[in-house]
Amino acid sequence: MTVHLVGVGPGRADLMTLRAVRLLGRADAVVVDRLVGADVADFVAPSAERYEVGKRVGGGPGQDEINRLLVDLGRRLEVVVRVKGGDPFVFGRGAEEADALAAAGIPVEVTPGVTSAVAGPAAAGIPVTRRTVASGFCVVTAHQDDRSTPVDWSALARSGLTIVVLMGARRAARIAAALVAGGLSPDTPAAVVTDAARPGQHTWRGRLDQLGTEPVASPSVLVIGRVADAALAAGAAGLTPRTPTAPLGTG
Amino acid sequence: MTVHLVGVGPGRADLMTLRAVRLLGRADAVVVDRLVGADVADFVAPSAERYEVGKRVGGGPGQDEINRLLVDLGRRLEVVVRVKGGDPFVFGRGAEEADALAAAGIPVEVTPGVTSAVAGPAAAGIPVTRRTVASGFCVVTAHQDDRSTPVDWSALARSGLTIVVLMGARRAARIAAALVAGGLSPDTPAAVVTDAARPGQHTWRGRLDQLGTEPVASPSVLVIGRVADAALAAGAAGLTPRTPTAPLGTG
Repeated sequence: MTVHLVGVGPGRADLMTLRAVRLLGRADAVVVDRLVGADVADFVAPSAERYEVGKRVGGGPGQDEINRLLVDLGRRLEVVVRVKGGDPFVFGRGAEEADALAAAGIPVEVTPGVTSAVAGPAAAGIPVTRRTVASGFCVVTAHQDDRSTPVDWSALARSGLTIVVLMGARRAARIAAALVAGGLSPDTPAAVVTDAARPGQHTWRGRLDQLGTEPVASPSVLVIGRVADAALAAGAAGLTPRTPTAPLGTG
Repeated sequence: MTVHLVGVGPGRADLMTLRAVRLLGRADAVVVDRLVGADVADFVAPSAERYEVGKRVGGGPGQDEINRLLVDLGRRLEVVVRVKGGDPFVFGRGAEEADALAAAGIPVEVTPGVTSAVAGPAAAGIPVTRRTVASGFCVVTAHQDDRSTPVDWSALARSGLTIVVLMGARRAARIAAALVAGGLSPDTPAAVVTDAARPGQHTWRGRLDQLGTEPVASPSVLVIGRVADAALAAGAAGLTPRTPTAPLGTG
């Protein structure tokens, strides 16, 4: 009767919200993507129907098909949980799924989550804002839809904000070039946090004009701006990465 | 021995992370601001020392004093929890406190939280990104430090991103004027979400050139961009506001 769009954070079970945990525990059906960590499964009610709808290269269901599945489940079951990595409204097509459900008359509720855009840099000790350095930040994806207002990289270059890019691994060099062309200094500090808050976490640090000169693995968060300076970031220790299979351990 | 900077989200107990709840439960001391909801107190270990350091008009401790308190507690106790509304690194001076602790040789760990910048709009059914409309968003504060790179409002106006302003209630009209002067259309949709995800939540919707023409109460999140359009936002129902004294109820 209600479909919940539920953010489960950046991939550590202990960064899930109480609300997310509670909804998973009383779910009649759970719909997950491939990117969502296996540890989420530990919280799902044993009786729940499970659907994996992750898009794969050359396969997997399309968005229309996912929308239809959610509508069907919402008609048939009491508590349907659509699991989203990070936050449902930070990319991830949460808005589209909410629209499709509303159009079909199915109630939708959104449960926000910890977004990788902030937690990813934090895991490497990088604050996206810092009072004496950056009064704000922007979050963009390198994968843009033609119908969307295009991101103006030269405006971002002049904005004075920390720039966080999600899903930008393969376009890192092009993004760096666009920002330099837009007037951002080539020696602006930059960082790449790969597998943030997960066991394999590692961080690259350098200058904007070095960003993407070596291959960047997915998933990665790119951070561009003075907050990414290694000397500044030294204060904050970040999160101790640990195995996602120990959802409530210490650390 | 360790000071934890812990985000507790936008003010609903059930939007706290498991990690935040666990740390509060084993805290030897807890240091909170005035803005943090009373419901957080329900999760604090009964034996914990409690310190309220909220800044007040014409009073309250300064940041240096807070830093000294955290260092003292970190030297004396095992688990010190510095509670931050939202996320510790989205404004809120988390970076400065981490620096002061690191300089004193006290280990710091950061626990990210659900940020009001995303959860605030979501509570009113507004997604900060939407694939066919906005490929990103920026988050700025209206209270900027002179030493920080100044926010270029005209660059934001041209960025193509959703603009989210925190702590902007009293400067809403000036911000709107700066964005219009920077080239953003006066009829750009705008919204103000006051007391987001809390019992008194209410939402104002209008056009950019109407923003701030009436007084805006604090705390409010301002959202500017096509995603704030009432017709578009209708799909997502947002969160049902409810009393923060019912931490794990339904809703």
